[in-house]
Amino acid sequence: MEFNIKEYIRDIQDFPKKGVGFKDITPLLNDHQATVQTVKALKTLLGDQKIDRVVGMESRGFFFGTLLAAELGVGFIPVRKPGKLPFDKISEEYALEYGTDILEMHADAIKPGERILIHDDVLATGGTAEAVCKLVERLGGEIVQLNFLMELSFLHGRDRLKNYEVKSLVSY
Amino acid sequence: MEFNIKEYIRDIQDFPKKGVGFKDITPLLNDHQATVQTVKALKTLLGDQKIDRVVGMESRGFFFGTLLAAELGVGFIPVRKPGKLPFDKISEEYALEYGTDILEMHADAIKPGERILIHDDVLATGGTAEAVCKLVERLGGEIVQLNFLMELSFLHGRDRLKNYEVKSLVSY
Repeated sequence: MEFNIKEYIRDIQDFPKKGVGFKDITPLLNDHQATVQTVKALKTLLGDQKIDRVVGMESRGFFFGTLLAAELGVGFIPVRKPGKLPFDKISEEYALEYGTDILEMHADAIKPGERILIHDDVLATGGTAEAVCKLVERLGGEIVQLNFLMELSFLHGRDRLKNYEVKSLVSY
Repeated sequence: MEFNIKEYIRDIQDFPKKGVGFKDITPLLNDHQATVQTVKALKTLLGDQKIDRVVGMESRGFFFGTLLAAELGVGFIPVRKPGKLPFDKISEEYALEYGTDILEMHADAIKPGERILIHDDVLATGGTAEAVCKLVERLGGEIVQLNFLMELSFLHGRDRLKNYEVKSLVSY
């Protein structure tokens, strides 16, 4: 029987606020076999392209980001919210629905020319992913692919990332 | 040559505030071989005890928590800060140096009688770990071990956890 990741993603209505549908991946994480299948599927998205590091976004990108990096045999780099990373860092501001937010990465995380895979759980508007692309490129990293567990295609996040290879396991 | 995790942990002075020394694990995560050795070492701490789930604390407990769960062949459960988990949940308040904070866990994450390994990166005062123990036990989980990458032994976190098996890879 084919593995269907959607069976392990729980739909939550009106979270984090009224009118928003949230995709809960905790049932997926709670199931070892489904987790293994998901990591394998993410690896398959990359094909035979070689990478040097996986970058994952705080916090839900940490789960499959670390697992995918381990599966690919490369190091993992966390992108974090302001005030969390303790060493020299670079930051990017990006737009939210109302206002702005900031993401940070350690300045020594990537060496120029390294091939980078960016991972997060959900591609929504693409604002976060776009900010992470800027961080990676400011350090001289080459973005090989952005991959996601799922894509909310009605938000058209791909339009902001059209200079990059973008893959996701499932689309809603 | 023996693996020494301390070579991959960076000491940062005066972070997050003056007078505090911070242990930065991003160099460890950035190195695949060191990450693999760390996961193996955490598994060794457990010995031949069987567990059903790994519980890890937001956010730095997510890195090696997910990797350790995958290595042990079990599911992973995130403990999160307030407002992050979308489904039915339970919560515990715990004391900080000034004021209090809250941790949450999904109410369906653990079934009564399941054997639980709790993981975080650092054992400091033990306040966070103690709150997580309460969450696990409220759901009927049996705590097999708490393990940590490192322990700040001068903060005596073990004293608050004396009813449990507590292990760490290195002590400062």
